[in-house]
Amino acid sequence: MTFQDKLRGAVDRNNSLLCVGLDTDPSRLPPGLGIFEFNRAIIDATKDIVCAYKPNLAFYEAEGLDGLKALEDTRAHIPDDIPVIGDAKRGDIGNTATYYARALFRMLAFDAVTVNPWLGFDSVEPFIRYSDRGVFLLCRTSNRSARDFQDLKADGQLLYEHVARKALEWNTRGNIGLVVGATYPDELRRIRGLCPTMPLLIPGIGTQGGDVEVVVKNGVDGTGAGILINVSRAVLYASAGSDFAEAARAAALRLRDCINRSRRE
Amino acid sequence: MTFQDKLRGAVDRNNSLLCVGLDTDPSRLPPGLGIFEFNRAIIDATKDIVCAYKPNLAFYEAEGLDGLKALEDTRAHIPDDIPVIGDAKRGDIGNTATYYARALFRMLAFDAVTVNPWLGFDSVEPFIRYSDRGVFLLCRTSNRSARDFQDLKADGQLLYEHVARKALEWNTRGNIGLVVGATYPDELRRIRGLCPTMPLLIPGIGTQGGDVEVVVKNGVDGTGAGILINVSRAVLYASAGSDFAEAARAAALRLRDCINRSRRE
Repeated sequence: MTFQDKLRGAVDRNNSLLCVGLDTDPSRLPPGLGIFEFNRAIIDATKDIVCAYKPNLAFYEAEGLDGLKALEDTRAHIPDDIPVIGDAKRGDIGNTATYYARALFRMLAFDAVTVNPWLGFDSVEPFIRYSDRGVFLLCRTSNRSARDFQDLKADGQLLYEHVARKALEWNTRGNIGLVVGATYPDELRRIRGLCPTMPLLIPGIGTQGGDVEVVVKNGVDGTGAGILINVSRAVLYASAGSDFAEAARAAALRLRDCINRSRRE
Repeated sequence: MTFQDKLRGAVDRNNSLLCVGLDTDPSRLPPGLGIFEFNRAIIDATKDIVCAYKPNLAFYEAEGLDGLKALEDTRAHIPDDIPVIGDAKRGDIGNTATYYARALFRMLAFDAVTVNPWLGFDSVEPFIRYSDRGVFLLCRTSNRSARDFQDLKADGQLLYEHVARKALEWNTRGNIGLVVGATYPDELRRIRGLCPTMPLLIPGIGTQGGDVEVVVKNGVDGTGAGILINVSRAVLYASAGSDFAEAARAAALRLRDCINRSRRE
């Protein structure tokens, strides 16, 4: 089953465009709980209301081999019918990118990954060659310094628009999507205009301050879907106590329903 | 000791600007040898003739937890007075970049890392904050598709020139360097012109086809140094047989001496 099919299945079944980011920071866990135990509880509490999970590899790598073992266990615990996006933001020359693709798609069995486009086509191609997996290119990121390079104008177009156009050109297998920060709703609207049917992975809601309603309005495709709104900290750390899983479920439900209300407006 | 001091020490002691890339591919090892055993033999055979080692994380990640254990063992085997550059090409928003910096500088204890600048200053800052470590930004990479984005012209400057200028602006701690492919000698010359004293990490000699003499001429700073010429496959796989370590030493010696001859010309 392709990433797109699996995503569509989860979106429909759980009536959700909410992706939960598993950016698990050991220093923020309830006492006595390991990374995997925490993630397992979060997954068990939210798996019927999300369209995807997105672990960011940085948080696991920061814990060394133990962290990577926790990532493997986490990935294995996620039900087969929910897609898992490995947020790795890798990017390297072709020969090397082949090894990153192997690490992410084979060893870690992610259904999709995020990829940094700065090195151009031959750095992206080893990922999109896995035609049953998804590849989200970093187009306009959610951080303040995104503008340092992504907003430069070349040949009459902003850099992030160049990335969006290249993504269209490279999308011969239909498995490319874009990462666009919720914190930049105008840029989101322009990107959706350039790429009417491409899936958009949208971080930046919650702690980073993006507005759900505006994001949905500016981001959805012609069918009222085509976006994955990622929330990490506002779900994971909804409570610092032993009720963290129920609090995460309540926060995720509120977000899912808020997104769905915005879709209907 | 800072990365710069350690690098200068190794350059002087070994009279070398050669960095050996530990891009170890299990499918290319002599029969019966593991990744770490192979790397150990390569290090033992070359540690008196290199200025640095540069493992690329992709090759280790592609082997899962075993690969990462081999990377840790390899890092630990490199003598303390030779700097180790973790070629990870990470790049993420500030909060996340902090965790990548921790993974690379604390868990893996690299003296320097490569970082992708696409997300701008706040994605780079968590790395340069480690003032005793080095940070090489991907400026003009060695691959063919580098031109897809890095050669676009904005405000009268090519994108890679924007990166070089930002690197100068961000270099308040004096620990930033640039990655510039040997396969683009004209770009290398322009970048050296913009950044007269910044260390340049130069891959692309050997298998990728860059020319040592031109690279040295266009890359060195005013003191005839300031470059690290990285070679991976042409050293690691100089022989496919049981004499691989001696062959690697011979290849590394030839390269080191070829670089030094070019410096004197």
